[in-house]
Amino acid sequence: MTGILDGLTLVEGSAFVAAPLGGMTLAQLGADVIRFDDLGGGLDHTRWPLAANGQSLFWAGLNKGKRSLRVDLRSDVGRELVSEVIATAGTFLTNFPARGWLAYDTLRARRDDLVMVHLKGNRDGSSEVDYTVNPATGFPWATGPRNLTEPLNSVLPAWDIAMGELSAVGLLAADRHRTRTGEGQLVEIALSDVAFAVVGHLGRVAEAQLATRDSPRRDGNYLYGAFGHDFLTRDERHVMVVALTHRQWKALLEVTGTQQQMAKINEATGVDLDTESGRFEDRDLIAAILRPWFESRDLDEIRLAFQGTGVSWGPYQTFRQLVEDDPRVSTETAMWEDVEHPGVGRHRMPGTPLDFSAVPREPVRRAPLLGEHTSEILTGMLGLTDAEVGRLADAGTIDLGPRA
Amino acid sequence: MTGILDGLTLVEGSAFVAAPLGGMTLAQLGADVIRFDDLGGGLDHTRWPLAANGQSLFWAGLNKGKRSLRVDLRSDVGRELVSEVIATAGTFLTNFPARGWLAYDTLRARRDDLVMVHLKGNRDGSSEVDYTVNPATGFPWATGPRNLTEPLNSVLPAWDIAMGELSAVGLLAADRHRTRTGEGQLVEIALSDVAFAVVGHLGRVAEAQLATRDSPRRDGNYLYGAFGHDFLTRDERHVMVVALTHRQWKALLEVTGTQQQMAKINEATGVDLDTESGRFEDRDLIAAILRPWFESRDLDEIRLAFQGTGVSWGPYQTFRQLVEDDPRVSTETAMWEDVEHPGVGRHRMPGTPLDFSAVPREPVRRAPLLGEHTSEILTGMLGLTDAEVGRLADAGTIDLGPRA
Repeated sequence: MTGILDGLTLVEGSAFVAAPLGGMTLAQLGADVIRFDDLGGGLDHTRWPLAANGQSLFWAGLNKGKRSLRVDLRSDVGRELVSEVIATAGTFLTNFPARGWLAYDTLRARRDDLVMVHLKGNRDGSSEVDYTVNPATGFPWATGPRNLTEPLNSVLPAWDIAMGELSAVGLLAADRHRTRTGEGQLVEIALSDVAFAVVGHLGRVAEAQLATRDSPRRDGNYLYGAFGHDFLTRDERHVMVVALTHRQWKALLEVTGTQQQMAKINEATGVDLDTESGRFEDRDLIAAILRPWFESRDLDEIRLAFQGTGVSWGPYQTFRQLVEDDPRVSTETAMWEDVEHPGVGRHRMPGTPLDFSAVPREPVRRAPLLGEHTSEILTGMLGLTDAEVGRLADAGTIDLGPRA
Repeated sequence: MTGILDGLTLVEGSAFVAAPLGGMTLAQLGADVIRFDDLGGGLDHTRWPLAANGQSLFWAGLNKGKRSLRVDLRSDVGRELVSEVIATAGTFLTNFPARGWLAYDTLRARRDDLVMVHLKGNRDGSSEVDYTVNPATGFPWATGPRNLTEPLNSVLPAWDIAMGELSAVGLLAADRHRTRTGEGQLVEIALSDVAFAVVGHLGRVAEAQLATRDSPRRDGNYLYGAFGHDFLTRDERHVMVVALTHRQWKALLEVTGTQQQMAKINEATGVDLDTESGRFEDRDLIAAILRPWFESRDLDEIRLAFQGTGVSWGPYQTFRQLVEDDPRVSTETAMWEDVEHPGVGRHRMPGTPLDFSAVPREPVRRAPLLGEHTSEILTGMLGLTDAEVGRLADAGTIDLGPRA
């Protein structure tokens, strides 16, 4: 390990998105992250999307750069082994129920300065997943075409992602505290708190509570409170255009040559289009004025016309177009590398989006195979002999993963 | 400051979501975060949603717990003051262009161990915002009702949020490196990298690249690769139900009494509903079997029936229902407090979702008024006298903000 978090070791007991992403974020910065799983793999071990051979591309994506420890978590010996690995590492990140052998106090009895970060569904410990908490946030009623009468979910598990990154913040903050004071601690975070806090941060709780205006309605691809909208191009692509700042607005009018028409709109409606609120109020008119410009040009012409102008825009892409057409997702960049994942095949994998000038980028490491590092972890961290490891494997308490 | 990040001081030069959220995340953990702005306020100073008096609830939401320094950023003296504040703090988080007086090398000349975290749109320094990068990710083509023919944006700026939290991870990682080695550095992160990396982490890049099956189509409120769907209740509420794990699936069938019917579906289609993939394949049939159960019950009955059963579900709420009905967004919880924001009024504000056992929760602090702390920052950090501050204010180089 040579990354910015060199010297940090943590154990992860996890499944799905948030906790694995939190651990992987740290692993991609150079921390030694050991994910332990039951013999059959975690609850996320077969999560879609899948590769042709049935392996989970989701699991492969969210566990890159970790080491894998595969243990019978129902056996006392298995639990003892994992507990000792946690105590040796000194830092534990988990979304498992923190009770019994995984209770903070139980683990801390083995290591007084243990830092444990516990991800929960709700603050009271009850369960909640991204797809059930998102409906509660209010966003599904604010998302979708104007004429839609039903709430619309996000396909992206945005709250899990926010919680994953925030759990890494919590872990580093507690590690800093331990470095300064010698004191370990339990850090807790709940998915619904993460989600609802963001609703508050964006001003939506205050807006609803103070009820200063009608509740915002779903508004298709319009931006809330400024001008932003999508347009169809002549070659049947779609582009998104945003005028949030004065500069973006001026650039958009200049390139599209619509200044005069916008001035007439201004006169016709009495709404000042030089303000964000005014552009929001007249968004349908603005879109109607701009539409012919886009519909009479191909995407490539539009790209050329906007280049270097300060217009804020972007083309819509499918996942496949992103992979095939976008130079930002290519091995020409520093973030993406082609890496072989046994069984799945060679494919493009992202490293961390963070660049640190003091250390070179870590090479992108694939996810482990289940149990791949069981032997080296038990011998290297707990000092077991190869013979002891062999006996545990023979007894079915551990699994050494696929042999070379 | 008594939070977990006690002793950390950083300066923030920012606008909109990501950088302000990164700074606020650290401020709510006890860091002293100084946001500086031009005399008229930043580009986000009037961003919607707005309070009745026109103040930005967005700005108030994303700058809680910071101190505000208000300076003429176009003047040499103003830039000199801000540069000195940055050098004194030693840590700088910004999404401003890092050139000229804000270039890393320029600032570092004043403080050799400076940590600077720079948030960019794209890796090459070109601009990009959440609403223009989201179209490129592929998600807008995967979101929405099945019959929709146009891409659909996310109203939530999920990528900004992920970048905000990840920038805080980067800052803490660089701060740790400085503590261990004495070395400062420049940390860089680009919004499109954050977004596309997540697309990769979730397996969507691999899926598209390996092209192991047809591109997933938009699928309304169904969950991808398992069973999850929304249902209308008798009292015309909507609920989301998820069966990702075996336990959740069994609990759902048991409570709704649909085991027999599901077994018949299994027989009829030959698809094994005891697998995630099988439940995804037969999702329309499963939904049709479950629908009458929901449509013949009110939300409260459903809530009662599911209580303590292991069924994973949640009701849809508008922003207003979230604020009015959900006990998780109330001052009964540890995270929410009613706080007065001058001009806007008293309203519910969230603190950090992270709980640290080693320190008490920080009280929720409102956002500053623009320039509120100008005087105390210049006297406290730079050692200016009150007379000097007064002369700068008279000259229009700084603004002391609203007087009491």
